[in-house]
This record gives sequence, C-alpha cells and structure tokens, in this order.
Amino acid sequence: RRGEMAKSTQLMNNEVFRAYATYTAIVLLKMMLMSLITAYFRITRKAFVNPEDTDSFGKGESAKKYLRTDPDVERARRTHLNDLENIVPFVGIGLLYALSGPELSTALLHFRIFTGARIIHTFAYLIPLPQPGRGLSWAVGYAVTFSMAYNVLKAVWLL
Amino acid sequence: RRGEMAKSTQLMNNEVFRAYATYTAIVLLKMMLMSLITAYFRITRKAFVNPEDTDSFGKGESAKKYLRTDPDVERARRTHLNDLENIVPFVGIGLLYALSGPELSTALLHFRIFTGARIIHTFAYLIPLPQPGRGLSWAVGYAVTFSMAYNVLKAVWLL
Amino acid sequence: RRGEMAKSTQLMNNEVFRAYATYTAIVLLKMMLMSLITAYFRITRKAFVNPEDTDSFGKGESAKKYLRTDPDVERARRTHLNDLENIVPFVGIGLLYALSGPELSTALLHFRIFTGARIIHTFAYLIPLPQPGRGLSWAVGYAVTFSMAYNVLKAVWLL
Repeated sequence: RRGEMAKSTQLMNNEVFRAYATYTAIVLLKMMLMSLITAYFRITRKAFVNPEDTDSFGKGESAKKYLRTDPDVERARRTHLNDLENIVPFVGIGLLYALSGPELSTALLHFRIFTGARIIHTFAYLIPLPQPGRGLSWAVGYAVTFSMAYNVLKAVWLL
Repeated sequence: RRGEMAKSTQLMNNEVFRAYATYTAIVLLKMMLMSLITAYFRITRKAFVNPEDTDSFGKGESAKKYLRTDPDVERARRTHLNDLENIVPFVGIGLLYALSGPELSTALLHFRIFTGARIIHTFAYLIPLPQPGRGLSWAVGYAVTFSMAYNVLKAVWLL
Repeated sequence: RRGEMAKSTQLMNNEVFRAYATYTAIVLLKMMLMSLITAYFRITRKAFVNPEDTDSFGKGESAKKYLRTDPDVERARRTHLNDLENIVPFVGIGLLYALSGPELSTALLHFRIFTGARIIHTFAYLIPLPQPGRGLSWAVGYAVTFSMAYNVLKAVWLL
C-alpha cells in the first residue's frame, strides 16, 4: 500500500510538475469562477434562458418576460467560452511540456505569464477595458501556449 | 521493449489512478453522448444551422425553412456546453488530485459523487426537472471539483 | 536535481506516450488556429460583438453598424466549438489510453486517424463540403475516441 502511494506521488516530487499542478489548478478555478459570475448577472439582471428557471417569479406572462438576453450576461458567457478555448490548450499542452523536462525557471516563466495574462484578460473583458487591452492579454496567453507546444514537439516528435 | 511497456502502465497499477481513469472515461463518454442527443433533436425536429445540412430536403425555399432554431435542440446544446464548462475542470484537476496521493476511499468518494451529480444534471436539464433540481446537481459537481483543487494546492503549492 | 529531471522525462521515454504527446500537441494547435480564423473573418467582414472592438471605426452610429453577425464568422465559431466538444475527449481519454499500455502500432493508428479526421472536418466545415463530408469526418473522430475509451475501461475498470 505505502509503496503504491509513493509511486503515485512520484510526479509530484518533481518541481516542474508541482509548478504545473499549481498554475493549472489556479487557471481552472479562475475559469470555474465564470459560472458564478454568469449566475450573478442572470439573477441580478433577471435574464434567464430556461423557462423552469423563472418559475419562482410567478407563472405565465409575468415570469416569461425574464426569458431574455442581457448584455452583461452575454459578456460573462463570452469570457467563459474564451477561457475554455484558451485554458484547455494550456492544460493539455502544459502537461506534456512539464513532462518533457524543461528547466524549472523557464517553466515557471511560461506558467506565470499565462496565468497573469488570463487574469488580466478576464478583467479586460468584464470591465471592459478599451482595446487593445483584451486583445493583447489574449495574445500573450496564446503565445505562451504556442511556445510550450513548440518545445513539446521538439522534444518528443514521433509521428 | 517489455521494460518500456511496464513503465507505461506503472501509473495504472495505482488504484487511485485506475479509479480516476474509470470515472474520467465515464464522464467524457457522457459528455460525448450530448453530440448524439443534439443530432437526434436536429433530425427529428428538422432544425439545422448549416445550409449544406438541409440539401437532402430539396433545394431552395423548401429546404431553407429547416434552417431554424428549436427549443429542444437549444436545450441539448446548453447541456453540452455546461458539460464542457464543468467536466473539463474535473478532468484537469482530478488528474492532479489523483497524482497527489489521496486515500483511495476519499478519492472514490469524490469521483463517484461528481459522476452521479453530472448524470443527474443531464436528466434534470433535458427532461427538464423543476428547479432547484438542476441547480443543486450542478452545485454538487462544482463543490467536488473545488474540494479536489483545494487538496491539490495544499499538496503541491509551488508558485 | 539531475535525478528529478530524469524522473520527469521517464514517461517521455515511452514511445506510445511520445506519440500521444505529438498528436495531442498537433490537434490542440489546430484547435487554437480556429481563434485566428474567427478573428480573420471578424476583421475582414467587419462583424464584431463587443462595442469596445469597433471603437477604432469611429464613435456612435458609424461604428455601431459593425456590431452584427456574419455567416462566415458564425461558421468559424461553430467549427471551433465542435473542436472543443471533440478534441477535449480525445486529449483526456487519449492520455489514459496511452498510459494503459497499448501496442505502439495500434496507438499510432488511433492517433493518426483521429488527427486526420479532425483536419478533414475543419476543411469540410469551413469550405463547406457537401454532406456527408463533414458528418463522416466527425463520426470517424468520434469512433476513434470511443474505441480508446473502451480499451481504457477494459484495462483499468475500478468503480
């Protein structure tokens, strides 16, 4: 039993992998936060999409008027989808990158810049900041993921 | 060759990792099922979004009327997107959690509750069940993923 | 330090895992390419969704007319979402499959067919090709992922 458990944590004894685990947990929690922000806007703006969600506002026409779109809700949903589109590649490529044996300092640089860029991107989208604020923060995260993918392919290429 | 293959299955000799693999395969297959459910509704409700998908119904105006939205199709699509938003964090954080060396019984509890909650969520969304059925099943899965993320960060924190 | 780094690359010494890493990096980069294609169509078709994105076209009504949907933009967005729905299960189930110790030739067959199918799917969606071009390429990728999930569950089943 002990032996097995030791084996399971072997990867976690590796500092690059621990850094990957820390930043991946942080960006995935940040992405999950978007669900709460969307729910907050749906409730405060009274803007829902499912009829069963407005039943507590009464039956019939009085509740039906809350089945509508709201700019703040739609903005939060776009931020969430943008997270999915960008954080999924980071998590997948980052895992392979962490396993490909990079220097700890180089790996930390990648993980930190990506995480910072995505947090700035969230604020830039939700406030919203004037462009190119959101565009630049998106591009920085994109470039970091691309750099990790390049390093993975250089290290493991087997087609 | 043999030696290499043995190495590749080392993680799979760990019971927590085998449990993670089992439940991750199940929830990802459940998510994939949403594609088939959406396709089923598109075909039975004759509600498509791409002009090339309605060509078999004839050319011109007769086919054009099937380029429309349908409540059942949209509901299936929302269920699918909600799966993406919630199952992606489970798969990513669950992997790190499984590697962080939890007790098998604690890990199984997390994986089983999450998987059960997401299956209930799917029925609650598609039937649909009255609220707070869907809301609660969503919140349970969310809380399980949050608990795993907390345990990962406690175990590996390296910023 | 050296010992740790060696451990971190142990998985990468396994040929099946190297193949998984190569094809996963390729399909995730392909998915990331969809962001650029959507941006290209938004800029060339002048079709935006965020008011702050049209500020460079002037203030007020003159810029407001570019807040609209465009068929090419929407098509690129659907291709991107379809990638998310199908590439996420491939990355998650493929990782478990690679760790479950399959023959290299069988694993390569799975990875190559999936990657080819998703590249064809992208062209079929964007051009667009007449059906069943897109439908078939989608189904092939789906079947490959299902086959990997079956092999994972057969190898590791621990409920």
